[in-house]
Amino acid sequence: MARWFLIMTLLAGAYAAPLQLMPLPRKAVVSSGGLAIDSSFRVATSGYSDFRLEAALKRLAGRVSRQTGIPMLTNTVKPASLLVECRERGNEYPTLGEDESYQLDVSTTSARLQAHSVTGVLRGLETFAQLIGPGPEGFEVPSIHIEDQPRFPWRGLMLDVSRHWMPMAVVERNLDAMAAVKLNVFHWHLSDDQGFRIESKRYPKLQQNGSDGNFYTQAEVRQVIAYARDRGIRVIPEFDMPGHTTAWFAGYPELASAPGPYTIERKWGIFEPTMDPTREETYTYLDGLIGEMAALFPDPYFHIGGDEVDDTQWKHSASIQAFAREHQFADSHDLQAYFNRRVEKLVKKHGKIMVGWDEILGPHLAAETVIQSWRGQASMAEAAAQGYRSVLSFGYYLDHLYPARVHYANDPMDGKAVLGGEACMWSEYVSPETVDSRIWPTMAAIAERFWSPREVADVESMYTRMEAVSRSLEWIGLEHRANYGAMLDRLAGGRSSEPLRVLADASEALGIEGRRDARHYTSLVALNRFVDAVRPESELVRRLEGDVAGIGSDPAAAAELRATFTAWAEIEAGVRQLAEPPLPNGRGSVTGGGSGTNGGSGTKRDGSVPNRDREGAGVMVAELVPLAHNLAAIGRIGLRALDYIEKRETAPANWIADQSQELDRLEQPVAEVRLAGVRPVRLLLAQLRPQSLANGSVRCGNEPLCNSPATVLNWTLTAARPNITLEQMLWVSRAGK
Amino acid sequence: MARWFLIMTLLAGAYAAPLQLMPLPRKAVVSSGGLAIDSSFRVATSGYSDFRLEAALKRLAGRVSRQTGIPMLTNTVKPASLLVECRERGNEYPTLGEDESYQLDVSTTSARLQAHSVTGVLRGLETFAQLIGPGPEGFEVPSIHIEDQPRFPWRGLMLDVSRHWMPMAVVERNLDAMAAVKLNVFHWHLSDDQGFRIESKRYPKLQQNGSDGNFYTQAEVRQVIAYARDRGIRVIPEFDMPGHTTAWFAGYPELASAPGPYTIERKWGIFEPTMDPTREETYTYLDGLIGEMAALFPDPYFHIGGDEVDDTQWKHSASIQAFAREHQFADSHDLQAYFNRRVEKLVKKHGKIMVGWDEILGPHLAAETVIQSWRGQASMAEAAAQGYRSVLSFGYYLDHLYPARVHYANDPMDGKAVLGGEACMWSEYVSPETVDSRIWPTMAAIAERFWSPREVADVESMYTRMEAVSRSLEWIGLEHRANYGAMLDRLAGGRSSEPLRVLADASEALGIEGRRDARHYTSLVALNRFVDAVRPESELVRRLEGDVAGIGSDPAAAAELRATFTAWAEIEAGVRQLAEPPLPNGRGSVTGGGSGTNGGSGTKRDGSVPNRDREGAGVMVAELVPLAHNLAAIGRIGLRALDYIEKRETAPANWIADQSQELDRLEQPVAEVRLAGVRPVRLLLAQLRPQSLANGSVRCGNEPLCNSPATVLNWTLTAARPNITLEQMLWVSRAGK
Repeated sequence: MARWFLIMTLLAGAYAAPLQLMPLPRKAVVSSGGLAIDSSFRVATSGYSDFRLEAALKRLAGRVSRQTGIPMLTNTVKPASLLVECRERGNEYPTLGEDESYQLDVSTTSARLQAHSVTGVLRGLETFAQLIGPGPEGFEVPSIHIEDQPRFPWRGLMLDVSRHWMPMAVVERNLDAMAAVKLNVFHWHLSDDQGFRIESKRYPKLQQNGSDGNFYTQAEVRQVIAYARDRGIRVIPEFDMPGHTTAWFAGYPELASAPGPYTIERKWGIFEPTMDPTREETYTYLDGLIGEMAALFPDPYFHIGGDEVDDTQWKHSASIQAFAREHQFADSHDLQAYFNRRVEKLVKKHGKIMVGWDEILGPHLAAETVIQSWRGQASMAEAAAQGYRSVLSFGYYLDHLYPARVHYANDPMDGKAVLGGEACMWSEYVSPETVDSRIWPTMAAIAERFWSPREVADVESMYTRMEAVSRSLEWIGLEHRANYGAMLDRLAGGRSSEPLRVLADASEALGIEGRRDARHYTSLVALNRFVDAVRPESELVRRLEGDVAGIGSDPAAAAELRATFTAWAEIEAGVRQLAEPPLPNGRGSVTGGGSGTNGGSGTKRDGSVPNRDREGAGVMVAELVPLAHNLAAIGRIGLRALDYIEKRETAPANWIADQSQELDRLEQPVAEVRLAGVRPVRLLLAQLRPQSLANGSVRCGNEPLCNSPATVLNWTLTAARPNITLEQMLWVSRAGK
Repeated sequence: MARWFLIMTLLAGAYAAPLQLMPLPRKAVVSSGGLAIDSSFRVATSGYSDFRLEAALKRLAGRVSRQTGIPMLTNTVKPASLLVECRERGNEYPTLGEDESYQLDVSTTSARLQAHSVTGVLRGLETFAQLIGPGPEGFEVPSIHIEDQPRFPWRGLMLDVSRHWMPMAVVERNLDAMAAVKLNVFHWHLSDDQGFRIESKRYPKLQQNGSDGNFYTQAEVRQVIAYARDRGIRVIPEFDMPGHTTAWFAGYPELASAPGPYTIERKWGIFEPTMDPTREETYTYLDGLIGEMAALFPDPYFHIGGDEVDDTQWKHSASIQAFAREHQFADSHDLQAYFNRRVEKLVKKHGKIMVGWDEILGPHLAAETVIQSWRGQASMAEAAAQGYRSVLSFGYYLDHLYPARVHYANDPMDGKAVLGGEACMWSEYVSPETVDSRIWPTMAAIAERFWSPREVADVESMYTRMEAVSRSLEWIGLEHRANYGAMLDRLAGGRSSEPLRVLADASEALGIEGRRDARHYTSLVALNRFVDAVRPESELVRRLEGDVAGIGSDPAAAAELRATFTAWAEIEAGVRQLAEPPLPNGRGSVTGGGSGTNGGSGTKRDGSVPNRDREGAGVMVAELVPLAHNLAAIGRIGLRALDYIEKRETAPANWIADQSQELDRLEQPVAEVRLAGVRPVRLLLAQLRPQSLANGSVRCGNEPLCNSPATVLNWTLTAARPNITLEQMLWVSRAGK
């Protein structure tokens, strides 16, 4: 025991480990030394094993090799570095509430992972992989004892593949990432107004007329299910009904409450086309479809959507109105409740338990029904009061691009009826290229909220570990970081994108609320602009905020601030140049340099014709010139403030006040992007006038008061949009989409 | 005609286009306007079509979509944007000397690609894809007329998959990149001392004992051949013999000239194990193997290596010496010549034409034999004098990491017997993760040397276009840019790698000559250090060199110089920090900020035990601290020089002389890396004292005199290693590896 020091234990509430784990385990004790990871790294099993476990061990070897850059010798004869002991067979397909606990012991000579189930082993292997990092003599896993198990049994990610089509590769790499942070439910939003994305053999016009050819075959669906199962993830399909169904009607207009024809919806929002709940043929059809899909998906839960029903078609239909009167329905809600009860019978008939969004809550629902709450904690409480189990999605809407700390502070609350939570990635403003960067790494912080004890709530710790996980997710195939540079390169049209990178590093992309009115977006508008490359949350700015706190004591902090502010101050000319065409005799041109080249170079131009190259080649960069102009101004203020601090001069009070005002102006969104770069400069100004902390002009950086959930939310609230309430901000409505 | 302006035509020798094409076409004329690329982009064919062409068009659609970020609607009904006309069937498998010409015409409304063969169409499609870039209103292809055909019929890349194993994915993505720059020969170096990498069904112990399990199955080989064929690339296998054969002997020791047993070689160099050329059983065996492999590979050419035979085993064998005396062989060369003649008969028996390295040149070789020249232009001339066709590899050894301009200045020379050239990627110092960045983008410049007219030789133009192509290669799956950041992230162990990126951007990795004695490298040493992430040639430094030339006239140039030098001057603290462990209360720690966090955070430590976290977590970063120290010094000199220039002050002559000397010192390699950052600062000093241009202290940047091939070589020579001759430098020997 003398050789131990306690890094972290829940009982003590202490989380100060340099362990880059996310989610944090329930209990972890680090001792000195570590297990070296080299080319002889090998895993062996004792106890129960199966194809899931064997596949997981094979994946681990490949991942360790990629993560460390060390080639693995598969034919090594050394004893195993990691011994895996699985105690019970467990379920082959992951099950709600199954035992996911594991225990991991790593010493300087070997590691041992014990679990009751294969699923528990899977969770432990992810922990082991996350622990690998550079040590004193190369890569290693620190000596550690971990006991771990999840807080909630339902930890999900919903992916909307309808509004923007997501190919198999996107689904699979996100399943890998989900497994890495111990999520266990993939909620597949397969149909909506903009696309029906799964093959039906019984009703083939669903995908033929409703998907532009972009749908998953049933073989591919089986592949996804197996892929997820191997990673301990359940797959729950959603067929949203009776609203959000335009794409169904492109093939089967007779299902609708008004005559067709219908075509796939290209715009965003809530639309009128709605199923006719009064015709028996509707239920016959759904019986067929639900039967087909229930057989395809092994999970016992089946999601029927049920949200956001626009009742215009119902109100305009004489027959539907007659039906409603006949059944003495008070309003459209009653009509939808009738529909839900009918659908639930079908779901049950085919052996499944129904899941639906808030709106399905109504009289006479089966007790086993699960409510997915997207409209607020209140609706979840209501469901619980009526005895229904629920899953929280309110506060976890990724398409809003909120800071991770906002989601992190949102808790599903413990309670018998609360199964857990699900983050939702609605896809109006994401493409296969950008979707990873809108889910990750924020999703990792949410996954910690779902897995780790409630007391794990330190925001600084969360951010440090989240960014580490973000980088480690590169090794399992996510493209959130790789696509960042590639997308900026694309805008630069073959020239260096360095000025755009400087700009992007200091920027944060607006979410759905900031984009929906910015231009006329449809599903045909390419998401290939600067805003699409930019991250939801700037890593650089968070680091600079930390630098400001360390400015007196840490030479690296001051150095980074000065270098960064200088780069900002000098940014404008470079961005301007990228907004212009490559000129034959300018920088970035083919002949280059202006200093002449050898032999015969030259461009003949007919001066009398319009020169297309001078019209402005970089339309997508041109909108960034004002943004660069603003960042340059922020950089200059930062440098000036830094000078005051380093030279220990007193800044004039009116200068500080003026600059604070100026920063407010410079923070206004341009090109659907906000300059996060103002934040560290605000903190610097606060250092120049410490008493100003209380006057509201300074937002939180590393101040202690920032880290409580309430303060975090309040901070975000005031920083991001001063005129709405907390509840309004977390109210994640698709209505205005 | 009035609406045209001539951008470039060979006749006029003018290359000043902003066209980002590589290799440059034989003839290109640009007119105003361009063809918009949007989601309705579609390709159609007229004339002859086949599965190769159809597959190519499908690939193009995917690539255009990735390259632009525009989703493609596959079910569009608009007329085709690009019409492809193939005139003849041509060969299904690409053939040496086939017609690869094409003509491309793009207007504002449509594009038309014409070619005689499918292979010609493939070349033209790559040109079309390269031309897509951001235009005034979005992505477009400029209006253009192109007539194109290759200079040489044999344009290759040799990949050594023996010294480091290269999985299928590496081979396939490099075939894609080869196709993008119109290369047409993939030379697959399948066996060497360190591994026999292909399945033999006849002699299975070759792969079983000779590959550590890392070999291509015959099914995979067929897949590679088909993949290459679809892209107009021939696949030529090499089985190096009679030397470089240790891995064969692990399974079949009886083939060797000395008794075994043998194991796979793990070190680099030339080794003694050599086939016994005197036993008839050797030829019986080779008859079997060559027959099996000749049937597997459809290409008529078959490479038997033949290089670098160490005759120690021969000299120590009484029976071999007796055989030599009996046959009146003067020396070991005669013995090898005998071996070659015997092997050639076997190659011919199985329907193939023999290819071999320089050393096979000897009496009585068949006239059709092709000599691959790696030892110099002289050996190629000798082969030509004896009537043999040859392929130049001398001067194209990628493992030396020479600047692209050096390879670019190396010309295969026209002549009847010169088929073309091949770049060689020997794999002692590359892994699957780093190999792309050692082949690309340099390979693109070499490909231009092989394809474009000899007169295409402007170095500035080459670099600008090469870097554009480097970025566009991201969209076809190469990892040379993506892995750069990921590998730096790995070194930072989850923390921000920004300081390492600043350092890496200013650095250039040493090639084989700088590495072989730097540490004890074997095939088991991981290539995951800073030097492995760093590029062979710094893009940033090249840009800064251009900035110095533009400093008076271009605000962006001065801005970039100042921002960059500031980042360099401030780099040291950040790198130092990464070399240390993440501290619980320091920057980068979990608790972070030093400003306290909410509730109960804290670390309990037993002060009496050794704290492993303080021993230095970043062993791989620690070696970079001196490098960062040097870069900071370079940055300070740069800032000072910039001040002199911008304030129009005169720098003291002795200050300039002192700094020049200091730069020489700062350029000395550290951690197998050279700081390229000295080069722009040297140019700045030259601006302060223009008369110093002639005194040898200033190396070339954008000066006109630098661009002739001779000057380029001479420059590289003096800059890189002052004490060797040009011939010595281009002498690419594996002897010392």
